[in-house]
Amino acid sequence: MQRKTFRAMVCPIARGLDRVGEWWSILILRDAFAGMTRFEAFQTSLGIAPGMLTRRLRALEAAGLLERRRYSTRPPRDEYVLTARGEDFRPVLITLLAWGNRHFAPEGASTQLVDAATGTPVEPLLVDRASRRPLVAPDFALAPGPAARPGARVRPGATRDLLGNPHPASSDAEGAGR
Amino acid sequence: MQRKTFRAMVCPIARGLDRVGEWWSILILRDAFAGMTRFEAFQTSLGIAPGMLTRRLRALEAAGLLERRRYSTRPPRDEYVLTARGEDFRPVLITLLAWGNRHFAPEGASTQLVDAATGTPVEPLLVDRASRRPLVAPDFALAPGPAARPGARVRPGATRDLLGNPHPASSDAEGAGR
Repeated sequence: MQRKTFRAMVCPIARGLDRVGEWWSILILRDAFAGMTRFEAFQTSLGIAPGMLTRRLRALEAAGLLERRRYSTRPPRDEYVLTARGEDFRPVLITLLAWGNRHFAPEGASTQLVDAATGTPVEPLLVDRASRRPLVAPDFALAPGPAARPGARVRPGATRDLLGNPHPASSDAEGAGR
Repeated sequence: MQRKTFRAMVCPIARGLDRVGEWWSILILRDAFAGMTRFEAFQTSLGIAPGMLTRRLRALEAAGLLERRRYSTRPPRDEYVLTARGEDFRPVLITLLAWGNRHFAPEGASTQLVDAATGTPVEPLLVDRASRRPLVAPDFALAPGPAARPGARVRPGATRDLLGNPHPASSDAEGAGR
């Protein structure tokens, strides 16, 4: 594996990615959200090698996303269920699903988000939970949090934040070229 | 690499993941959203091997997420800018950021989403774009789209959908055990 750990990085995106490990883990989470709990169910769904599946399940358990529960003592058998932290990953999967449908389903969606009462397809939108205003610039922004290093307002090379707000002090060549 | 391609899978989550390739690609996208466009900027930010960075940039270009633009002819130099498809990936990064902050920043957030006017931290929420109602069960659901295989309503082993709605016909052991 060429991948190094992102855990030492301060960025919450990098840290989050580090805990879900790799793609298999995200697909295992997808299947856990679909109600699958047992090794055999994940294996059948994913067509993944047993050793790899065992490693990914253990990693998700160690990261606190899945919890192992014994459902049979003779023979001993465990199942894996989402923890609250795992459940919190749902919005990532929903936004990924909408993005995949929008851009990589040339033949049309195979599965889509709908209004349950009418069956009408719906588009997800990210809003501020309190005010319900769309979470976009310039109303919203990324800002240093309580654990930010003093003085380290902006990452080197960054000219704007994730929402698209320009950084006040960004006037390097990288920014000027845009 | 033990990873196989997910492109053949019908699931939009799997297809989306396939196009962003691996973690480096997501962090490159994160940096592209931060306004970085040049090879050297990505390399400095990520501490990634040049060969790996070249491969990931080309893969993101091939997937239509980044567009290469020549900014200097002598010497020839290209920069990489987000396409509309790449820009559409923003909600995935925002939800990932919020999740990372919530669960993997024990010392507090280093960077966080705020109301730009007041500086108050905000929580993202996924809603239906049209009605602004929270995108949760039972109001919303996943349903077969126009490209779904006839009769294939539910994936084998799935007892509920991504939003948590039970599948009508799910009564196998996997579901009963929950």
